Amino acid sequence: MVVVMKQDATESDIEAVSERVRGAGGEAFVSRGAVHTIVGLVGDTDRFQAIDWKQMQGVDHVIRIGKPYKMVARDLHPETTTVKVGTTPVGRDTFTLIAGPCAVESMEQTVAAVEASRAAGATIVRGDVYKPRTSPYSFQGLGEEGLAILEEVRRQTGLPFIVEVVDLNQVEGVAEVADCIRIGTRNAQNFELLKEVGLAKKPVMLKRGLAMTIDEWLQAAEYVAQRGNSEIILCERGIRTFEPATRNTLDLAGMAVAQYESHLPVIVDPSHAVGKRHLVAAMAKAAVAAGADAVMIDVHPNPEEAMVDGAQALLPHEVVELGEQLAAIAAAVGRAMNR
Amino acid sequence: MVVVMKQDATESDIEAVSERVRGAGGEAFVSRGAVHTIVGLVGDTDRFQAIDWKQMQGVDHVIRIGKPYKMVARDLHPETTTVKVGTTPVGRDTFTLIAGPCAVESMEQTVAAVEASRAAGATIVRGDVYKPRTSPYSFQGLGEEGLAILEEVRRQTGLPFIVEVVDLNQVEGVAEVADCIRIGTRNAQNFELLKEVGLAKKPVMLKRGLAMTIDEWLQAAEYVAQRGNSEIILCERGIRTFEPATRNTLDLAGMAVAQYESHLPVIVDPSHAVGKRHLVAAMAKAAVAAGADAVMIDVHPNPEEAMVDGAQALLPHEVVELGEQLAAIAAAVGRAMNR
Amino acid sequence: MVVVMKQDATESDIEAVSERVRGAGGEAFVSRGAVHTIVGLVGDTDRFQAIDWKQMQGVDHVIRIGKPYKMVARDLHPETTTVKVGTTPVGRDTFTLIAGPCAVESMEQTVAAVEASRAAGATIVRGDVYKPRTSPYSFQGLGEEGLAILEEVRRQTGLPFIVEVVDLNQVEGVAEVADCIRIGTRNAQNFELLKEVGLAKKPVMLKRGLAMTIDEWLQAAEYVAQRGNSEIILCERGIRTFEPATRNTLDLAGMAVAQYESHLPVIVDPSHAVGKRHLVAAMAKAAVAAGADAVMIDVHPNPEEAMVDGAQALLPHEVVELGEQLAAIAAAVGRAMNR
Amino acid sequence: MVVVMKQDATESDIEAVSERVRGAGGEAFVSRGAVHTIVGLVGDTDRFQAIDWKQMQGVDHVIRIGKPYKMVARDLHPETTTVKVGTTPVGRDTFTLIAGPCAVESMEQTVAAVEASRAAGATIVRGDVYKPRTSPYSFQGLGEEGLAILEEVRRQTGLPFIVEVVDLNQVEGVAEVADCIRIGTRNAQNFELLKEVGLAKKPVMLKRGLAMTIDEWLQAAEYVAQRGNSEIILCERGIRTFEPATRNTLDLAGMAVAQYESHLPVIVDPSHAVGKRHLVAAMAKAAVAAGADAVMIDVHPNPEEAMVDGAQALLPHEVVELGEQLAAIAAAVGRAMNR
Repeated sequence: MVVVMKQDATESDIEAVSERVRGAGGEAFVSRGAVHTIVGLVGDTDRFQAIDWKQMQGVDHVIRIGKPYKMVARDLHPETTTVKVGTTPVGRDTFTLIAGPCAVESMEQTVAAVEASRAAGATIVRGDVYKPRTSPYSFQGLGEEGLAILEEVRRQTGLPFIVEVVDLNQVEGVAEVADCIRIGTRNAQNFELLKEVGLAKKPVMLKRGLAMTIDEWLQAAEYVAQRGNSEIILCERGIRTFEPATRNTLDLAGMAVAQYESHLPVIVDPSHAVGKRHLVAAMAKAAVAAGADAVMIDVHPNPEEAMVDGAQALLPHEVVELGEQLAAIAAAVGRAMNR
Repeated sequence: MVVVMKQDATESDIEAVSERVRGAGGEAFVSRGAVHTIVGLVGDTDRFQAIDWKQMQGVDHVIRIGKPYKMVARDLHPETTTVKVGTTPVGRDTFTLIAGPCAVESMEQTVAAVEASRAAGATIVRGDVYKPRTSPYSFQGLGEEGLAILEEVRRQTGLPFIVEVVDLNQVEGVAEVADCIRIGTRNAQNFELLKEVGLAKKPVMLKRGLAMTIDEWLQAAEYVAQRGNSEIILCERGIRTFEPATRNTLDLAGMAVAQYESHLPVIVDPSHAVGKRHLVAAMAKAAVAAGADAVMIDVHPNPEEAMVDGAQALLPHEVVELGEQLAAIAAAVGRAMNR
Repeated sequence: MVVVMKQDATESDIEAVSERVRGAGGEAFVSRGAVHTIVGLVGDTDRFQAIDWKQMQGVDHVIRIGKPYKMVARDLHPETTTVKVGTTPVGRDTFTLIAGPCAVESMEQTVAAVEASRAAGATIVRGDVYKPRTSPYSFQGLGEEGLAILEEVRRQTGLPFIVEVVDLNQVEGVAEVADCIRIGTRNAQNFELLKEVGLAKKPVMLKRGLAMTIDEWLQAAEYVAQRGNSEIILCERGIRTFEPATRNTLDLAGMAVAQYESHLPVIVDPSHAVGKRHLVAAMAKAAVAAGADAVMIDVHPNPEEAMVDGAQALLPHEVVELGEQLAAIAAAVGRAMNR
Repeated sequence: MVVVMKQDATESDIEAVSERVRGAGGEAFVSRGAVHTIVGLVGDTDRFQAIDWKQMQGVDHVIRIGKPYKMVARDLHPETTTVKVGTTPVGRDTFTLIAGPCAVESMEQTVAAVEASRAAGATIVRGDVYKPRTSPYSFQGLGEEGLAILEEVRRQTGLPFIVEVVDLNQVEGVAEVADCIRIGTRNAQNFELLKEVGLAKKPVMLKRGLAMTIDEWLQAAEYVAQRGNSEIILCERGIRTFEPATRNTLDLAGMAVAQYESHLPVIVDPSHAVGKRHLVAAMAKAAVAAGADAVMIDVHPNPEEAMVDGAQALLPHEVVELGEQLAAIAAAVGRAMNR
């Protein structure tokens, strides 16, 4: 940590800062520049961060040099982590296709979407039963009935499934049946929910919030890790920008940064990022080429009838075709696709 | 609602759309342009919105003409609403100052902040006991102990108080003691929490999310209103943009738009918007001049020691000075400040 | 300047950095932290900035402590500057209303807009003759014919005028007749144009670019100042964000930051910021309350017929009414309106 | 075009709109909805767009159904265009690698960068001699001396080159020697410069502005096409967002949208988009997988000594390695790399 003093800071201001550093058990190194004096802090960063240095007389600003997250950072954990969803590994050694319906609407629709996904090479199923919807007038999900459908489909296909929770009271029940719990974009800084899934005994997929920096995303993951659950998969799904042509702006470089800063697997959801069917395949292919550990794709047997986000769902034959292309690109970048 | 057909849409595509409109109990008006044909939909908008028109063959895009919210919209409720927090009205007839500590840290700190706030003309107290923090290593609030402090301060001063809830299991308990429940920025699309406060018997203050459009903000308010609680105060507190000089970018025009589109009172929190003490007063003054129904200000007797957001808290003498200026500007724009 | 070394930087990496500092005539202060070592640089910042430190082995990142602009910064020029446009001062001692047509369309339209503006208390006229338009199919301005109209109107009213240049070949000619040259948003980083107006003998108004940080805006001003023209007025006019309800997002706190960081006058253009007539007055009032040195307002005698931006132009009676309100608020914040 | 009337619009308001449509030689189709009445306009869209409908009494808003650009749109020009830079085709049939120094600093540096680029498979050279720099204190380019270096390198290698212009007075001179003229991000809405390159006899590469929507980008291209130069290459290079971890946010889906909406070739500049060497290769690979027609890469023999943007330049061996990976991915997606 570095404290930068104002141009007109006095010697006693500088001494007060140094004194406070020592009071927190650290050492202060003062460098006097032509314009600004800076104080370098050596010691327990946690204690330093608890102090609001900017409040002190003569302090211009503070520069945090270390990362605000630890357990999920690569610094102290250089090798990458592989998270197992059911028996499917998600990590940097393989490339995984996750696919299925955006929302579980019925047994028939779910089976049709999952069959196509499996034919495309998917080894994990997605499908939601609790939907956080911007409008209170929109379909909110099938709830427990949907969970039963997902269980039955898993029994039939052997594929593990991921499902979103939107309320901390759901966590325990969902963790009992699902293979992986997902925290959605709008709950990415719902810290109480993060704490609760931190206590669950199942892997957690944490989507990036619409307005979250990568730094904040990793701090949200830290909430989960801190509670004891380090089986975390990060999912980039687009951020909010001024561009209206796509639902969100897919930040693929953000995915790469998260892989660089964290040891956790990082995947991409192109369907929710772009929101338009004709762009999904291009972004899925980009994601695997860029090194994503998995992509997650919405599939619907009849998108015109979809109750949620039909405009972005691939048709069964489209996901099968995409699966082949993803495998080819994965091979071209030296990575095997999970089968 | 208007469905715009693609340039190469066929007659049977157009007829299919019209047929579907009729199937939903509506009427379809077809206008054939030089390039695009459009279909105007007349009937029950709710039923139309449940259909994913973009999925239909030949459809280019859909234009929603009505607003996606109803109960909070001015269209069907032209006169403005005044919400009472304790005995203090928040609405367009008066201007209200809300002030107090960002977080309740102790009885002494809270009393000092509230005394200064009252001297400044504040008629509602703010003070939080559950803090949603970006980092899991930051102070998370005093919890129930803090609530007891707020109750005691209300007993002493007679001023009603507002407090944030971060977990739906807190709502019932907080609603019993607080005069107004607040939903914070990071939970602004935590729909389960919105539904829960919709059942509470106390007014709700709903902050705008960091990446929320005004349209989405009003839909979030609709979640609360739909459950039966129409005592809602909207609070603009800055959105996330590329500009790093301030914590967020205060969208004062967004406040004005929300007042125009909704009948609910709309207030401004300049402290959290800018995050820097030396900018708070300027933005508070701007807010009252622009017509905000209230401003909400962080106050701390000793910001250097603050456990949360000390950099933006006004000192006691600063809030008193600001209160005088706000009253003068309120008078200049023909509005009385609540006293 | 501070160079932060990587966690695994070696002693020879640190020595290489120090050596380079000395090679640039400076001194290097090394502080060894628990995790990172930092090197503080003292000496000629210009020479340090020319070096790409991040390229050196073992360097994690570099922190620039000083400001990247000098001539326009308050650091070395603490008292505020007042710029005279004709005989009208624009600065922190007074509050100035600038008003007139967005584009000069005809003598009649210009005279009508200027008469209303003068009645409202405006002491500077705006009116453009070269319009940078997003679409090549839109009206591009009257050119020299428009300049002649502005000169005639000045002769009649005595009010100085401001006009935009869009091409460096226009600068000399416009500077001969106009009282102030404006650089528009889309040319705010057209550095060749900035250099050219830096040589002009007339004041320059520099609008903030749509995606410009305040830091970059002040660097653009530095281009002008560096060429010898320090008569610069900064104009905040909204930045681009995700919010579609307004044309841009007015960053009023950004205006306040620019006033804090720079000694130059800073004004606000609410008309272009919001793009909607019914929001302009509220934002103009907010601007004066926040301390803006002037506001600039579009006026049109018949907005329905306006060739450019009619939706945001105030009607004659509206600007007159606004002028009164601005004067009242200016008085409430202890500031006289230029008359 | 569709005009949506306000809820309280009167019959005479609706008739006035219809009358105005007929006055512009068109036909008006009125559909009366439960809440809003809409008027569909059929006729000459150009004439309709010149009218500011929002100014008319009773009009709520206007919906433009057609695209605001024509010559660059796919609607009237469905087959894709291939632009030749020297003898190298840039288009959807092949994949092209463009590489070279960000700025031309010396003959040695340029030759070294170009040799590595050629070894990597590059068939077009990049290298700038006029640099638009945020700070007036930064290196501004070698100017004509740099052009001579590029010509000499072309003589030696046979590779055509692209160079940026920043001032309209440079266009004629640069067009005489360069194989393609580039308009940079900060000049992407410098309309006078766009018009000037529209008259040049050489292809133009048009970078997307930092805050430009795709719609605005294509309108900028329309400025060039309208003047007679339809040899335009679009280049996505990142947009400005709230995320600080990368220099800009690469909008790869934006590239795909531009390819969908326009017949022009669209390429990607990952170097300037991310600004960090360790992310460039991942984004270049993503771009080819997503279908970009070319990628453009900064190369420097000694990035530590680079005068501009050294942090993002690949080393010679890195670009060679990247060239192989790009060829492999291009093959995987069924596309030949130009050699």
